[in-house]
Amino acid sequence: MKRKNFSFKLISRHKNARLGKIFTKRGNIDTPAFMPVGTLGTVKGLFVEDIKKTGSQIILGNTYHLMLRPGTNILEKFNGLHKFMNWEKPILTDSGGFQIMSLSKLNRIDRKIGAIFQSHLDGKKIILSPEKSIQIQKSINSDILMVLDECPKLTKNREILIDAIKTSTEWAKRCKVEFGNQKEKALFGIIQGGLYQDLRLKSLKELEEINFDGYAIGGLAVGETQKEMFSTVKKITEYMPQNKPRYLMGVGTPSDILGAVNEGVDMFDCVMPTRSGRTGLAFTWEGKINLKNARYQNDKSPLDKNCNLRGLKNYSKSYLNHLIKSNELLASMLISLHNINFYQQFMSEIRKSIKSRTFTKFYNRYIKLFN
Amino acid sequence: MKRKNFSFKLISRHKNARLGKIFTKRGNIDTPAFMPVGTLGTVKGLFVEDIKKTGSQIILGNTYHLMLRPGTNILEKFNGLHKFMNWEKPILTDSGGFQIMSLSKLNRIDRKIGAIFQSHLDGKKIILSPEKSIQIQKSINSDILMVLDECPKLTKNREILIDAIKTSTEWAKRCKVEFGNQKEKALFGIIQGGLYQDLRLKSLKELEEINFDGYAIGGLAVGETQKEMFSTVKKITEYMPQNKPRYLMGVGTPSDILGAVNEGVDMFDCVMPTRSGRTGLAFTWEGKINLKNARYQNDKSPLDKNCNLRGLKNYSKSYLNHLIKSNELLASMLISLHNINFYQQFMSEIRKSIKSRTFTKFYNRYIKLFN
Repeated sequence: MKRKNFSFKLISRHKNARLGKIFTKRGNIDTPAFMPVGTLGTVKGLFVEDIKKTGSQIILGNTYHLMLRPGTNILEKFNGLHKFMNWEKPILTDSGGFQIMSLSKLNRIDRKIGAIFQSHLDGKKIILSPEKSIQIQKSINSDILMVLDECPKLTKNREILIDAIKTSTEWAKRCKVEFGNQKEKALFGIIQGGLYQDLRLKSLKELEEINFDGYAIGGLAVGETQKEMFSTVKKITEYMPQNKPRYLMGVGTPSDILGAVNEGVDMFDCVMPTRSGRTGLAFTWEGKINLKNARYQNDKSPLDKNCNLRGLKNYSKSYLNHLIKSNELLASMLISLHNINFYQQFMSEIRKSIKSRTFTKFYNRYIKLFN
Repeated sequence: MKRKNFSFKLISRHKNARLGKIFTKRGNIDTPAFMPVGTLGTVKGLFVEDIKKTGSQIILGNTYHLMLRPGTNILEKFNGLHKFMNWEKPILTDSGGFQIMSLSKLNRIDRKIGAIFQSHLDGKKIILSPEKSIQIQKSINSDILMVLDECPKLTKNREILIDAIKTSTEWAKRCKVEFGNQKEKALFGIIQGGLYQDLRLKSLKELEEINFDGYAIGGLAVGETQKEMFSTVKKITEYMPQNKPRYLMGVGTPSDILGAVNEGVDMFDCVMPTRSGRTGLAFTWEGKINLKNARYQNDKSPLDKNCNLRGLKNYSKSYLNHLIKSNELLASMLISLHNINFYQQFMSEIRKSIKSRTFTKFYNRYIKLFN
């Protein structure tokens, strides 16, 4: 059933793991969901029809990258990113906050003005205010928008974290005003606070007062251990509203996802399946496989004997090993496709196991496999 | 109709242009034919099923590249290249002669021994004898094999050319012996002789005495002008047997192909459509388009409004311009696919026009378009 307005339905729970569905005017999203990353308006190495065939119901676009290339002028000519890249299903856009921290030469954060930084492409000075971030996301015409936040690098310094929360909350309010009243779209708040529960809860409380359509956990997957990540997620999700989707940004490996689902997270995004695909690292039900390894040179077995996509089941590991060593485009194409397909299979099995109340068994079987 | 043994049928002629069909146990090839180049066991940037969808009936594999990577040991495990790369239609392999001239650090040609050279990958010394070349091509299990020839760089020095013919003829004999009697496969001789008609005819005569299943024109597309190429082709084709396929190696642009068809050539191969695809150069019925050009930044029109392959008709030039400037894999994937598809459309139109005796009109319309 397609609903016009954005909404979320919690279907069932098994312990803390949640089965749900997000409704958008461009299609529904079964949760827990994995969103392939389409940084610059393309999921690297995949044809759009293949993204769909993997069962992906939503992709992520990067506001920071898209504002630099192709820029909002061009996106507006196409009434947004969907038409520009031929993807008619939902798109979530991040706010640019994370990339400003990780990629650009950041000059400074000015709470009143916004983030002042230099483009990583041409060094041009750019000011990204909370309002500007929302305006750009509107030009992208995304279905789920994220507030602009200040995402500090991994730190145990409480002052830095408290200051980032203060900025993030103020900016979240301004984003909400700029977003306005758009029932067909959603605006998510982003919880900061490092690894400290009290700070996370302070951030969450302030965001809940503003009232968002969903809540994301930001500032993780920035270098902490998996154990720290899981325990931090656990400390927050207990207190997050049940009737709103929960999104752990930038995560992760299949076992990262499994551990976070176990703590009640609904949404994920990560470049790992495509980035790994370009270096020959494949995710399979037997674990990670580095296809560059000489042991696969003579291996006639397929990567996934059940996968019909682009004839994947017919390609031997030996052939893939040859393609990677020869730097052939087809290596990136086949392995990235395989990995996105595996991630979506993995999410589908997670959802089935929550539904059939066998998630704990699934969790125990696979939590160690991808570390 | 599928025939088990290799054969060629000349269906009709319009002036010098020939319409024909090559029969092989792996499928038939309508001529004039364009063979996409699959240097290392993949046509760069294309899924195998997409190569087929463009109407390609045969691809070319490079003996020199394949002997270095993945090597004959691995190819033999798969009973050849077809199974290794999942392409069950015919494959033609060159002999390695051209790549030894253009890529490797050639030590010397020893008429008795073969070509002695260093691998461009690791500098290892390799001896490629005529017998070895055929053995490798047998490991590849190709359907049309080429004799090992000495392909001199562009020169007007008759002595060098005469010497190369002497070597090439001797090697051609040895290749024929090594090839043996294999009716399901074909062995083509390669005519050398530079731009001189008398030398070309000498080479052709010597090869005809050995008797091959087809004859290739080698040593062109090595830096001469298009006019020189056409006039050289004309001087040779007049004297080539009518009942055997004629193959102009390494050619070329659509207009190169058109001009050579006009002189009676049946087969072509070239990296141009895929190599250009990776740099953003597209071949269309309106001519060449450099999609990197800023003029396409705002161009919402598609590259080919009639192409349904991978949704190509839905992608705007603006989007392709963005992808190329962003170095996205999808740019290479879409434009290479478009170009191979265009080349095959172009060949199909050439065949139709020979059949309907309108080839001269077609020739006049397009001969200037791609220069």
